[in-house]
Amino acid sequence: MNDARVVIIGGSAAGVEAAIAIQKYHKVGKVTVIRKEEKVLVPCGIPYIYGTLGAVEKNLMPDALLGSVELVIDEATFIDRKSRVVTTANGKTVAYDKLIMATGSIPIIPRIPGVNKKNVFPIWKDAKYLEELDKALNLAKNVVVIGGGFIGVEFADECRKKGLDVTIVEMLSHCLLLACDEEYSIMGEDILEDRGVNILTGSAAQSIGGAEKAEYVELSDGKRLEADVVILGIGVAPNTDLAQRVGLELGELKGVKVDEYMRTSDPNILAAGDCAEKTSFFTGKPSGLRLASIAVREARLAAINLFEARRRNEGTIGVFATAIGDSGIGVAGLTEREALQEGFDIVVGQAIAVDKHPGGMPGARQLRVRLIFDRKSGRLLGGEACGGVTTGEVANMIAMAVVNRMTAGQMVTMQIGTHPALTASPIVYQLVNAAEAAMVKFG
Amino acid sequence: MNDARVVIIGGSAAGVEAAIAIQKYHKVGKVTVIRKEEKVLVPCGIPYIYGTLGAVEKNLMPDALLGSVELVIDEATFIDRKSRVVTTANGKTVAYDKLIMATGSIPIIPRIPGVNKKNVFPIWKDAKYLEELDKALNLAKNVVVIGGGFIGVEFADECRKKGLDVTIVEMLSHCLLLACDEEYSIMGEDILEDRGVNILTGSAAQSIGGAEKAEYVELSDGKRLEADVVILGIGVAPNTDLAQRVGLELGELKGVKVDEYMRTSDPNILAAGDCAEKTSFFTGKPSGLRLASIAVREARLAAINLFEARRRNEGTIGVFATAIGDSGIGVAGLTEREALQEGFDIVVGQAIAVDKHPGGMPGARQLRVRLIFDRKSGRLLGGEACGGVTTGEVANMIAMAVVNRMTAGQMVTMQIGTHPALTASPIVYQLVNAAEAAMVKFG
Repeated sequence: MNDARVVIIGGSAAGVEAAIAIQKYHKVGKVTVIRKEEKVLVPCGIPYIYGTLGAVEKNLMPDALLGSVELVIDEATFIDRKSRVVTTANGKTVAYDKLIMATGSIPIIPRIPGVNKKNVFPIWKDAKYLEELDKALNLAKNVVVIGGGFIGVEFADECRKKGLDVTIVEMLSHCLLLACDEEYSIMGEDILEDRGVNILTGSAAQSIGGAEKAEYVELSDGKRLEADVVILGIGVAPNTDLAQRVGLELGELKGVKVDEYMRTSDPNILAAGDCAEKTSFFTGKPSGLRLASIAVREARLAAINLFEARRRNEGTIGVFATAIGDSGIGVAGLTEREALQEGFDIVVGQAIAVDKHPGGMPGARQLRVRLIFDRKSGRLLGGEACGGVTTGEVANMIAMAVVNRMTAGQMVTMQIGTHPALTASPIVYQLVNAAEAAMVKFG
Repeated sequence: MNDARVVIIGGSAAGVEAAIAIQKYHKVGKVTVIRKEEKVLVPCGIPYIYGTLGAVEKNLMPDALLGSVELVIDEATFIDRKSRVVTTANGKTVAYDKLIMATGSIPIIPRIPGVNKKNVFPIWKDAKYLEELDKALNLAKNVVVIGGGFIGVEFADECRKKGLDVTIVEMLSHCLLLACDEEYSIMGEDILEDRGVNILTGSAAQSIGGAEKAEYVELSDGKRLEADVVILGIGVAPNTDLAQRVGLELGELKGVKVDEYMRTSDPNILAAGDCAEKTSFFTGKPSGLRLASIAVREARLAAINLFEARRRNEGTIGVFATAIGDSGIGVAGLTEREALQEGFDIVVGQAIAVDKHPGGMPGARQLRVRLIFDRKSGRLLGGEACGGVTTGEVANMIAMAVVNRMTAGQMVTMQIGTHPALTASPIVYQLVNAAEAAMVKFG
């Protein structure tokens, strides 16, 4: 027990988890959460508001999660690091002994003409704003989603569930190409197209036309796409306004610089989540990954390390999962492309089998897995999965194998349980068989 | 490439996988599979023939799986170990350089009066025999299942799907109690009872009455249960007839004795699957576990180690999963009871949360996880999960954490991906939160 005053700035994934974890790991005097938003959204649930959940209020995190904290709904505008006092926009001051910055990220808005027109929506994590998007979609017929990453893909699929005409405009040669290898990107595109989403890849939006409101998106080849609503899903940047204002150091990729214990350049300030700089597990280089799951993990680490260095962050491997319709795509660790870029000599193994057994079990469907190993050490660098509802946990198993530095040989003889209604048969179990397909290539 | 002749005796899970794996890992002269059965069943699928699949032929393993082997449908009755020749019941002889014993197990039949009556069915893995069971169930109204382990529970649930009146008779205080801790056993019983299965625990079947056919089961308290069909699900014993006949050493629990490379007391004979003795990962003591997933893993190990010791078997941890209705129960490693029996000082952590997020996502349901750690080392000894269709893979993740000797601290900061339609939210992700609930108790 100590009487430390802890302040958390930010109330999304990292802020919430920091508040919870501090109360689990420490007995402190007082925890104050300062956040701008009246209500907090489940970040990954945002696209699902529109087709699946049906309303913004079905995608809120209840404040009860926070436990016994002082909640200040206000914007933290300054930190006097010497006297350890936070000032808010409304002039409130809150003293702290330890502070956790969890200010999150802001959507990247492309500098194209017309981007500020009405009905052009970057994804701000703000309940009222997202209700405006809901209203606009309810009146729309044609939607253009600029950016074919996870968020763009999920928004496109949700808009289809509402019966809208949807087109994704993606600059790269395929959707999801920053997250997975081409083969899995194409699988994702195939599922989207089966569900009626139009996809234009290798295409850049050059401007957004219309009178007051968006009416169309003009592409670099001059083609015009009708659009009552334009959704921008081209990524996020760390929100470091406050950090910069108070002189905290930033990293190479412009996140708040932190050490392996989530401590910033100020010994009394830690940072976690989208606002914090990340480091790759594989290379130690800065990483641009920003995901709620990473934010929560970092918040937990920051809470554990709040008063003393207790648990190292070994760097992020990156684990994604998405769902399109009833299909899942998951990725953990390095893709083949990333591994090659980092100079690894790789061995790839694949396997595909039904996710129940025998194949006639109701609901059985194909689950495919692709694993990427380092030839030199035999260790797993990453992998991809595409299947049904178990895909997310299969990606998490790949992640666990990566972090534990499992080799192909270890994965071939991994211990699993199997069941007709729950998994593939042990003979064709995908993770084992993909590892085996790689192992026989090691020579 | 060598010109070795490899013979596999047995054609179920271990035999099939041995045949497949030998062809993956070696170039040999010839592989011969000798098996008694015309057709091979998917072993874990057997209960599901009756309510879900609808016919025995929907639960067969296609021989095409075996690849290019010589298939001999016959019973291997002798092995001349000196001249390395197998003799079959029909007088065929097959020479070998290396032999893999995969003779499986046989059902344990309780020595109670009436057990040999018609319509009393121990579960033999024989397609024609199981068709007889199907016919008998199609004419039945009341079924008694003796034994409330996984097989008994699965048969009971399948019989309910056919609309039969089903009663499980279990000697222990709860069903599934050899596989999981009481809390999870009770969850399983609750699900079964919700589905209309009658459960009599702490009850022993004393005799089976009736004229020619079974008509009732008499319990030790004198109570009689009407039964048109009696299913025996009290376990299996290693099938070592042939091994004993040819003088191979047996282990303490009467399986064929093998070393860590699956080699028997004869340097040219390896053994895998239910017929082989198993060793506990945790204690090095003999283990009585017999599961298809273990059999397949051992067969793979036997194939890898066929000509030289290449990969050690570190001992089995035991990973089970079952499904009742649309609920899953999975267990990996030691239960609390087993850990205490082995003298571990344990720390237990639990977590429960919906398996999608937010909770309003369609199909979301509770998934609970319980993890058992060794206080001294902090390492995970085992865990249990109960939830929906992801439960099997969650149990497999627990297994991976056990084998990698992950500590509570490592699990608290494990790297995961989360998605609204596929997993819990990162804040309440069950494996992490159960580890955290344990970690704060380490003190």
